[in-house]
Amino acid sequence: MTGEVGLLEGLATTRAIRRFRPDPVSDGDLAAVFFGATRAPSGSNRQPFRFLVLRDGPRAREARALLGRAFREAWQVKAAADDYPEDDSRRGRTARALRQFVEGFEHVPVVVLACLVRYRAPQPTEGASVYPACQNLLLAARARGLGGVLTMWHAAVEDELRAVLRIPDGVAVAATIALGHPEGGHGPVRRRPVRELVYEDGWEQPAPWAEDPPGTRFTRG
Amino acid sequence: MTGEVGLLEGLATTRAIRRFRPDPVSDGDLAAVFFGATRAPSGSNRQPFRFLVLRDGPRAREARALLGRAFREAWQVKAAADDYPEDDSRRGRTARALRQFVEGFEHVPVVVLACLVRYRAPQPTEGASVYPACQNLLLAARARGLGGVLTMWHAAVEDELRAVLRIPDGVAVAATIALGHPEGGHGPVRRRPVRELVYEDGWEQPAPWAEDPPGTRFTRG
Repeated sequence: MTGEVGLLEGLATTRAIRRFRPDPVSDGDLAAVFFGATRAPSGSNRQPFRFLVLRDGPRAREARALLGRAFREAWQVKAAADDYPEDDSRRGRTARALRQFVEGFEHVPVVVLACLVRYRAPQPTEGASVYPACQNLLLAARARGLGGVLTMWHAAVEDELRAVLRIPDGVAVAATIALGHPEGGHGPVRRRPVRELVYEDGWEQPAPWAEDPPGTRFTRG
Repeated sequence: MTGEVGLLEGLATTRAIRRFRPDPVSDGDLAAVFFGATRAPSGSNRQPFRFLVLRDGPRAREARALLGRAFREAWQVKAAADDYPEDDSRRGRTARALRQFVEGFEHVPVVVLACLVRYRAPQPTEGASVYPACQNLLLAARARGLGGVLTMWHAAVEDELRAVLRIPDGVAVAATIALGHPEGGHGPVRRRPVRELVYEDGWEQPAPWAEDPPGTRFTRG
């Protein structure tokens, strides 16, 4: 299950996982995942990130029901806006995975709220002290044979969520992360060619050394 | 130099590197680092992150001089505010490394501006689509025997920087990352005990399974 995933390989093969087996996540796996997450850098090493784990405690159940409702509503909006096909194309399969994810949200093994303890007014760059830790979390999950996905779909119920979980003012809910044993598997992620994402010496100036390794899978930008 | 760093080990041992050997970074290393960076997740897989690499091109030199000035000014402000000791304590050594870093900023082998192409108004959560890629960048650097550090010290010269590098409106400069071959080494990072950073079922409720592995090095919160 675990094996030894190399660092570069892990970066290139950590996919968004939205379909989970019902198996619970062990305490040992949770400890490793959150140890990895909390090793992330932050501004002046202030470590303002906090992870609130929701499994089957009394408040967790209430919070997860709120989130399930919000996720299903968010998916309705997205599905209507993005007009996904019903077929077996890649977008069709993505749509099916998203629908199954929100329909079964209350059964996701572990739900995590990634929080940020603010020390100044909200601003666009504050995520530099919480999203690296979220990425570490997803990578550590990958290393332990788990998988997950980061979403913002808690937004519609954030006020109720804060009340249920006693999240104080001055703390931002930066993301909701679903976590568990993947039903499918990890594997190479699909991205735009690296030359479209990396420039040298000026905006949109090509970086001659920017090359994708053989076998890379692409999306269109 | 490279070896095969494991994924979990990489997460726990990627330190902020601010002292660099003068050796240039090879094209192969740059390709691997930016391939890893751009494998990161982003909202709806939009991939709005762009990396602008500054080495020794004509605009790069001008931009780096601007940044050097801004970094030295930012350090002056921080040094005055934080009152670092001059001795050989950990804080004293940190202060010395920071001073050397800003004094020699123009000699940092590679400077990277991490940018975010916005599709809506600026907001506190937008970093979820750029800082995971920055963290991947630093981890990929670690895997290749390189090191780096992410800072916000470009802020004071951002307008001039945008003009020199032709960064369009609607694109945010999310971070400046310094990159090169470390003068010192990587190694276990120092953080707060994981129990102070992870809760279960409610804010500040302890997570009984949250344990640091033996030998973990701590900071005080």
